[in-house]
Amino acid sequence: MSFNIESQISSCGGKLLKLKHDSKSTKTSMDVNVYLPRQYFEEKAGKIPAVYYLSGLSCTPQNASEKAFWQPQADKYGFAMVFPDTSPRGENVPDDPEESWDFGLSAGFYVDATQSPYHKNYKMYSYVHDELPRELYQFFQTSGLGAGSTVDFLDNVAITGHSMGGFGALSGYLQQYSSPRKYKSCSAFAALVNPSQVQWGKKGFGGYLGSEVAQWEKYDPVNLVKVVSNNGNDTILIHQGTSDPFYKDQLKPHLLIEAAKGTSWEGKINLNLVDGFDHSYYFVSSFVPQHAEFHAKNLGLI
Amino acid sequence: MSFNIESQISSCGGKLLKLKHDSKSTKTSMDVNVYLPRQYFEEKAGKIPAVYYLSGLSCTPQNASEKAFWQPQADKYGFAMVFPDTSPRGENVPDDPEESWDFGLSAGFYVDATQSPYHKNYKMYSYVHDELPRELYQFFQTSGLGAGSTVDFLDNVAITGHSMGGFGALSGYLQQYSSPRKYKSCSAFAALVNPSQVQWGKKGFGGYLGSEVAQWEKYDPVNLVKVVSNNGNDTILIHQGTSDPFYKDQLKPHLLIEAAKGTSWEGKINLNLVDGFDHSYYFVSSFVPQHAEFHAKNLGLI
Repeated sequence: MSFNIESQISSCGGKLLKLKHDSKSTKTSMDVNVYLPRQYFEEKAGKIPAVYYLSGLSCTPQNASEKAFWQPQADKYGFAMVFPDTSPRGENVPDDPEESWDFGLSAGFYVDATQSPYHKNYKMYSYVHDELPRELYQFFQTSGLGAGSTVDFLDNVAITGHSMGGFGALSGYLQQYSSPRKYKSCSAFAALVNPSQVQWGKKGFGGYLGSEVAQWEKYDPVNLVKVVSNNGNDTILIHQGTSDPFYKDQLKPHLLIEAAKGTSWEGKINLNLVDGFDHSYYFVSSFVPQHAEFHAKNLGLI
Repeated sequence: MSFNIESQISSCGGKLLKLKHDSKSTKTSMDVNVYLPRQYFEEKAGKIPAVYYLSGLSCTPQNASEKAFWQPQADKYGFAMVFPDTSPRGENVPDDPEESWDFGLSAGFYVDATQSPYHKNYKMYSYVHDELPRELYQFFQTSGLGAGSTVDFLDNVAITGHSMGGFGALSGYLQQYSSPRKYKSCSAFAALVNPSQVQWGKKGFGGYLGSEVAQWEKYDPVNLVKVVSNNGNDTILIHQGTSDPFYKDQLKPHLLIEAAKGTSWEGKINLNLVDGFDHSYYFVSSFVPQHAEFHAKNLGLI
């Protein structure tokens, strides 16, 4: 398995690559964008880290690539960015029978589905946290791009995301916390923190994972902070706009702070409510500089 | 005449306003976005300048608002941004009979049409360079927004644009050069510099202005640099990507440099060919910081 480079786009000081590859996890062709910062094209940079950005409902890899404006931050600190897709796609991939925007195509919820007919393709957890990093690592070892620098897509990594992708980032970070592939840093924008308890999550978890609550809990950040032990000093950064129409009904970031009380995560989740900001990329792009600095510190770049 | 504030979106340190108003020039309702930087909301800022950004073919005010990322630059230096639409719109506005993307709706070419059926609505020159600035100035005098600061949308202004909008910026800047409303600064991204000689321009000018060459020349930057005298030290900044598919056939920025030879503009047009960049907002956003600094200097902000 390898990647086709569909296009290489000059952006800021580096290049945005639009890649396509056949995924074993999803049994489909998957799109993914990778931004290689200016440092990648400079001989001296060596091995640079990668930040994975998981997008929200209805998004493709293009939304954040065009509107979140990570590129100048990646150039500033010297990390690569990875923008995966939000679900498998293709004619044979089952969609929500109602073709809604919050389930099925572009709404994979970053879980490994167990329920028919979704279990065959909707393996986004394995794809994002296992297959994709390994494939990227391998491909870029021999891609011939760059000037002798490499990206450590596998082991020197951070994760972030927006909305459903903020959930995906928190969930993956906590589930991988004791694994060899531990993310060194995690942040989220307007994250769905407790999918088991809200409409978006109930629909997604129910459809992909069935009705057994134990299957939901292993993905739910509100549960995970209770069962995963913080190593000591790791913190999580979250921003949430107060004018976000989904803030009170779907996202409910305070539930994560509540859940962390009395656990090793108490005081380690830095929730920033930002007055007047909405759910759009106008919000995300406004706080990308703060998240970039946070990840750069945790990745040892500053 | 006044504006309706359709939405106020928190973005970076300021607010993006989506405005709608009835235009006398175009006899239609027009959309325009205005970004008010953080300084506008601080008591001490006083009267801040405005930069007008004219978009390219097929764009609305949203493209640059979402993808050019002027907002952090506006916050850095303290100027407002204005993103006008690219044509009149509406059911009664005549489109290209072929419904092409390079003429008619979203392709107004920033000229005042003289030819039927376009002459009734396609008065984008008067709209952008006269009506819109006056209306904005008046509206924000009494809008009650901000904390005592005002924006000088009328007299302390710069202009820039992309592609067709790069043409619009150059053309408007040079035509207004001796007027009381002289723009203090002009730049362009991948500008169409000599519309009279290329397919996009011939179609646009022919359709809106008819076949008389004298009517084309008063808008064409390549002609204008020969008839408008540089005051002394004014310079124009242009960026052009070398991988832009329209560079060689439509945009041809070298023709402007050629035309300026032997005139008062010789050596005053700073054309930067940037290797590998395309025609997209990945290109525009990469060089917005340089253009912002250029305008900030010319507007006396640094």
